Amino acid sequence: MITAEAVWSDVERVRREAPLVHNITNYVAMNTTANALLAIGASPVMAHAVEEVEEIVGIASALVLNIGTLSGPWIESMFRAAAAARRKGIPIVLDPVGAGATRLRTDTARRLLAEARPTIVRGNASEIRALVLADASTKGVDSSYGSEAAREAAVALSEQFGCVVSVSGAVDLIVQGRRIAGLANGHPLMPKVTGLGCAASALTGAFAAVDPFPFEAAAAAMAVMGIAGEMAAEGAEGPGSFQVRFLDALHRLAQKDILLRFRSAPEHRG
Amino acid sequence: MITAEAVWSDVERVRREAPLVHNITNYVAMNTTANALLAIGASPVMAHAVEEVEEIVGIASALVLNIGTLSGPWIESMFRAAAAARRKGIPIVLDPVGAGATRLRTDTARRLLAEARPTIVRGNASEIRALVLADASTKGVDSSYGSEAAREAAVALSEQFGCVVSVSGAVDLIVQGRRIAGLANGHPLMPKVTGLGCAASALTGAFAAVDPFPFEAAAAAMAVMGIAGEMAAEGAEGPGSFQVRFLDALHRLAQKDILLRFRSAPEHRG
Amino acid sequence: MITAEAVWSDVERVRREAPLVHNITNYVAMNTTANALLAIGASPVMAHAVEEVEEIVGIASALVLNIGTLSGPWIESMFRAAAAARRKGIPIVLDPVGAGATRLRTDTARRLLAEARPTIVRGNASEIRALVLADASTKGVDSSYGSEAAREAAVALSEQFGCVVSVSGAVDLIVQGRRIAGLANGHPLMPKVTGLGCAASALTGAFAAVDPFPFEAAAAAMAVMGIAGEMAAEGAEGPGSFQVRFLDALHRLAQKDILLRFRSAPEHRG
Repeated sequence: MITAEAVWSDVERVRREAPLVHNITNYVAMNTTANALLAIGASPVMAHAVEEVEEIVGIASALVLNIGTLSGPWIESMFRAAAAARRKGIPIVLDPVGAGATRLRTDTARRLLAEARPTIVRGNASEIRALVLADASTKGVDSSYGSEAAREAAVALSEQFGCVVSVSGAVDLIVQGRRIAGLANGHPLMPKVTGLGCAASALTGAFAAVDPFPFEAAAAAMAVMGIAGEMAAEGAEGPGSFQVRFLDALHRLAQKDILLRFRSAPEHRG
Repeated sequence: MITAEAVWSDVERVRREAPLVHNITNYVAMNTTANALLAIGASPVMAHAVEEVEEIVGIASALVLNIGTLSGPWIESMFRAAAAARRKGIPIVLDPVGAGATRLRTDTARRLLAEARPTIVRGNASEIRALVLADASTKGVDSSYGSEAAREAAVALSEQFGCVVSVSGAVDLIVQGRRIAGLANGHPLMPKVTGLGCAASALTGAFAAVDPFPFEAAAAAMAVMGIAGEMAAEGAEGPGSFQVRFLDALHRLAQKDILLRFRSAPEHRG
Repeated sequence: MITAEAVWSDVERVRREAPLVHNITNYVAMNTTANALLAIGASPVMAHAVEEVEEIVGIASALVLNIGTLSGPWIESMFRAAAAARRKGIPIVLDPVGAGATRLRTDTARRLLAEARPTIVRGNASEIRALVLADASTKGVDSSYGSEAAREAAVALSEQFGCVVSVSGAVDLIVQGRRIAGLANGHPLMPKVTGLGCAASALTGAFAAVDPFPFEAAAAAMAVMGIAGEMAAEGAEGPGSFQVRFLDALHRLAQKDILLRFRSAPEHRG
């Protein structure tokens, strides 16, 4: 079971160890991602050149691959970085942004699943579903499936590739085989700010860098995102001030915030 | 004539239909652009890989091409995406950022005009002038020409390419052939925030996705930008807080804001 | 000696002349960099295509090279732009982000030092040290060396390449040969916001564009960064609101702010 105490313990570990998280991510979310990692206490590095990604992995504690603005050279770098991360034994997080929307994204995400063997896959329900169903389609980067279909797809994905699957939505689902946790924190303004899903993936990398249990790390990251989102929403007048207050909340997040706000949804076992 | 009621009607349509707007845009403004589209109620997607732009157009309701940080591979993708958009019949918005500053930008913008046949061209006066005059030059991405020269250039451009031309400035001009509307909303802090011109082009795409009349769509987008800018300026202490409040204003924009604030400048017919 | 009056005089010149600063910089910091330049009164342009960088230099008053998200095509453009800047005689600022972390970064920064001959090198202590020591290593983009080692490395770098070296830290050091100034403004929240170091380099470019003395320009830029940082920290609730208030502070910076807050650290001569 995921507990508020375990979430707080992971936050403390991130702040104490300041893990270096290597992000090969999209242009839109790079700034937000780096600021979210700094705000929670981790250390971000963005590097995508094929000449240097292996060296960056060599000094990093986690690797985050995000296909949001994919192109050929970046794909090659993702595979190289992932191979180095596997050799080194650091966790790999895959965010399959827009999987289902184009063949390039779906195919790249599936190849990364099969070859890079990510520790954790974090996406929305549409994206997760696109990775397991041949006929799935996505409207852009939006989520449009209910939690029932999301859960089934996440279980299938987790079982097929032996990874933890973290599905963001009104209730976030963390899935490892048939073990499922639901997290009920968050706020409707979150999908109105670009890059918060990508930031969730980056934070998942930071937590996986300090917590050897990827299921717990993925859950702690999503709980922190949701709780900081609730804190940010208080006093926000729209998505602009929400985003500012979200970074402030990650930075100021205290034990009492997590103890008071943490809400798990009923846990399922399939 | 452009009316406040028509502007509000377009805002409602954007919020109801949440059109997917495909942006091939510059690195500087990507985040701001995506957030502005989300804040007004549209759905952004950024994708530039030549392998996937046609598929993205296939699910999009408008295409926005912005040459702000141009390079070879992106140019090829712009032409491919534009051809797909023309085949599909969705509106194309061209933002010729920095046209006149370099041959690459001027030539690419002119080739896009001739071959991609954008529905709407949105830029500042210097950029619009650079597209019609062989000897025009631009100082970076600034605007430095008066409204008289801007109007003449916009009319010439509109007549030559059969497009609507939207020229931002102290008074925004919307031009279709010899039909001209002037919009007088806005605030001096707007040019002090990078990417707001690019956001204006993206919003123009969102409005053109839901309004079949590109002149009206372009005018509604610029009116919304200017009105949100005025709302944002109230209480802003500089360009930082202005940008935050601008996204909040787009999100909160209500009918009364438009009815109370909308100001058209005297309409001209050439 | 660096004085508050000289710093203010440079701010006034930047606002009066609005120099166009050409940035070939990293994806993460582009937006923040452009907004910081606008907020202080300069005019930013980002352009990296090999086809246009020389033309952009032709209309610019300073060139800023930042290797934060390096790749092959960008490296080629940096050398081309630098050669054009040297021919034209405008100042070149090099920010060796992450030098020491990978061979690509260290080698590129050293080649730029030797061939592009930057007027000013601005980085943190780890990066500066990596440029002069064969065995130096950097943990990501963090600074981890004391001011003693930083000063020695900066002096060595300045003497070897005839450049001014600006080292950010709790005390910023400005070094030209054996002349050293220390600046003591700043706030601990600054390294918690991504891209502020990159913004410091861009501002250094803006100040070098209007002040013919690169030592004084580099010092004025760092003083302005530190003072705006202190102003931003008052009332900030974390790195999110800090960043917003920082841009506001750059925009509103008045003579009295500099006269009241400017703090030089004891000046050393080696």
